[in-house]
Amino acid sequence: MAQAAEPPSGTRDFLAQDVRRREAAFDTIGAVFDRYGFDPLETPAFERLEVFTGKLGEEASALIFKILKRGVHEASGEADLALRYDHTVPLARVVGTYGSTLPSPYKRYAIGPVWRADRAAKGRFREFVQCDVDTVGSASPLADAEIVWAVHDGLEALGIHGFQFLVNSRQALRGLLEAYGVDPTLGDVVLGSLDKLDKVAPDTVCAELVERGLTTATAEDLVADLIAPNTNRVRKQLDTTERGRHGLAEVDRLLELTAGLPADRVVFTPRMVRGLDYYTGPIFEVTATGYPGSIASGGRYDGLVAKLGGPDLPACGGSIGVERILATQAAVQTAQHGLDVALTVLGAEDDVLRLAAEIRAQGLRTGVYLGSSGKLAKQLRWAHDQRARLVLIYGPEERDVHEVTVRDMESGEQTRVPLAEVGSYVRLRR
Amino acid sequence: MAQAAEPPSGTRDFLAQDVRRREAAFDTIGAVFDRYGFDPLETPAFERLEVFTGKLGEEASALIFKILKRGVHEASGEADLALRYDHTVPLARVVGTYGSTLPSPYKRYAIGPVWRADRAAKGRFREFVQCDVDTVGSASPLADAEIVWAVHDGLEALGIHGFQFLVNSRQALRGLLEAYGVDPTLGDVVLGSLDKLDKVAPDTVCAELVERGLTTATAEDLVADLIAPNTNRVRKQLDTTERGRHGLAEVDRLLELTAGLPADRVVFTPRMVRGLDYYTGPIFEVTATGYPGSIASGGRYDGLVAKLGGPDLPACGGSIGVERILATQAAVQTAQHGLDVALTVLGAEDDVLRLAAEIRAQGLRTGVYLGSSGKLAKQLRWAHDQRARLVLIYGPEERDVHEVTVRDMESGEQTRVPLAEVGSYVRLRR
Repeated sequence: MAQAAEPPSGTRDFLAQDVRRREAAFDTIGAVFDRYGFDPLETPAFERLEVFTGKLGEEASALIFKILKRGVHEASGEADLALRYDHTVPLARVVGTYGSTLPSPYKRYAIGPVWRADRAAKGRFREFVQCDVDTVGSASPLADAEIVWAVHDGLEALGIHGFQFLVNSRQALRGLLEAYGVDPTLGDVVLGSLDKLDKVAPDTVCAELVERGLTTATAEDLVADLIAPNTNRVRKQLDTTERGRHGLAEVDRLLELTAGLPADRVVFTPRMVRGLDYYTGPIFEVTATGYPGSIASGGRYDGLVAKLGGPDLPACGGSIGVERILATQAAVQTAQHGLDVALTVLGAEDDVLRLAAEIRAQGLRTGVYLGSSGKLAKQLRWAHDQRARLVLIYGPEERDVHEVTVRDMESGEQTRVPLAEVGSYVRLRR
Repeated sequence: MAQAAEPPSGTRDFLAQDVRRREAAFDTIGAVFDRYGFDPLETPAFERLEVFTGKLGEEASALIFKILKRGVHEASGEADLALRYDHTVPLARVVGTYGSTLPSPYKRYAIGPVWRADRAAKGRFREFVQCDVDTVGSASPLADAEIVWAVHDGLEALGIHGFQFLVNSRQALRGLLEAYGVDPTLGDVVLGSLDKLDKVAPDTVCAELVERGLTTATAEDLVADLIAPNTNRVRKQLDTTERGRHGLAEVDRLLELTAGLPADRVVFTPRMVRGLDYYTGPIFEVTATGYPGSIASGGRYDGLVAKLGGPDLPACGGSIGVERILATQAAVQTAQHGLDVALTVLGAEDDVLRLAAEIRAQGLRTGVYLGSSGKLAKQLRWAHDQRARLVLIYGPEERDVHEVTVRDMESGEQTRVPLAEVGSYVRLRR
């Protein structure tokens, strides 16, 4: 009879404790973003398919869940809608849809599920929450710095300590290639190799660079300078090209504008590369002790809103990897959310919901026994399973004398309380 | 360049004020359900298509959004997933999936979007939030009554007044047909006609009943008794059949167990019909002054969980029509959510984010000017657009004397405040 079916591959059911833990995290982040003047935005779960067409790269396009046409058109096997792949494409559409009726700049956050038809794997989901904060319509370095501050405060509010913003700039990365004389056609693959310097041994990266076409001398210089304990040599090199100086200025401005954050929270990390076809200005990613990979990232992406079909506006933003954070924090045991008060039903049930209402009016979480047993022992076991702190025992005996027996489930102690005083009694025992 | 595209037909973008208003309503209802000991449940946006197959009627099945197979299988034009049509099918699956690891009875609420490929029309959406509360695994009349109480408290918490629960019972409806000698094969169509008595003139319903095969005398008796100012005659008739007596007892038990609610909140309404192939016991719907149609409904549906593929457990539940309520309440102007404090940027921007952080630490919503103008007038206009209450003016002049000019946007009054005291000053002015 029962169908022991799992939810679809790559998705999860969230039962009570999980929903509460996740909602608490989302609310925490939302409250931080709100305090920065970012407004919430919620777009539909799906967009018209054409909103995506040609907007995402080949790899991303293959991950879009497409929805069949409705009704009689279903038989065509054609799709006309697609589930939201991220919050950025909908943001670009919204900026286009509402234009000047939006505040300028438009500062918004979006915390909600996105869907990707990715290969299912441990820790990789087809439905997961993305948590984005973006400013569209400001070219000011203050906008970039504000994103870093807001993400910083969000991570702190989630109880994360010992995290660090690694910052860099797209211009600095390009300038770096110029300064070290890397052939422009090799740019992307060289940056791809350099990005591995946080996980892979320098020698291996060096060998890979040579294999990709760099001279051994250039590869060795580049790697040595990038892994050096300070950025002095890289800074000197960047200073030799126009683009490098520009990138360095971007990075330094961001460092100045975030100098109010705790010391060493934001550090120039010239080897750090992110989304090559996405970002145009300063970029950042956040690493934290005890968390795998990066737990937040972002940067400036001035051309993207127009590329995605919106108006041509400068933009920057960040994203908190809330699913990764939740998965890591799940290891920490969270307190169970039980009943404050459980009511037994022992032959006086006509009054029991009214009594429960009085207890609830005290702000207490109150449950009534809904099973079929008339035995106190069985009802107490239910109350125990519900992790109730107090149990109200109310049968004909108590009813006749207008009293309730209150049982403390931890101590087992029982007290008779006049019916009229039960509400205030349990409130004081909370 | 800009693409002024609307969201897909039947869906909506929710900008700042709407998100806040909706989230506040959902949180309000969730908090009430939580106080009754119901646990939140969140299932994926989609289920495997087979979870729905054969579970819903023909009409509902036609409204399911189907998702194309992924990757190379997309070309087949076949679907293997479907968007959630309601919260009941996922509930039945979850009860099957997690079985005895769930509390017994399993009391859960679900507040989240569902998707239906309905014909788009004013006020009818393809993506809308359903707000359900259900108890699976209890046959106790207390469970039915508890749902009524919880929905009652939810509606009150939403600020709705003058609402009424119309209650009836599937058994009473069947008994009514027997008592008035209606041919069993005409049962459903007769009930369908009687259900219109709240909107259509009695004569019209009478004529329809005759057209559908009732004798004129039966039709007139039935209608006259159902629209009578009290239920005495209907009660007398119900008392003449086994099934009628059973239905009446169900209704009366529900009335007794909800007697603690304000007077006349719950009334026996023998003409009220709901979901004929869905409910098996007591049923209710809620009407309210100023709201169209019903704003909540529910009842007992003992056979349904098994029919939907779950285990064979008794169940009852209710649903608050939160979209309808929000649409009606939208007419009421809601307060705008502006900035508490706006900071100008007039050549001293290196300190401005740090200053903003201090103001935020006071719990105030604080925005920084991110535009390109260096003119105070322009920045004050931005602050006005942001509905800021206070503006902090901080330029080189103020910086040199370690002060900030605080402008009250309502009165226009400006005060010089020492930099070190700005936080506490604005907090006191909140």
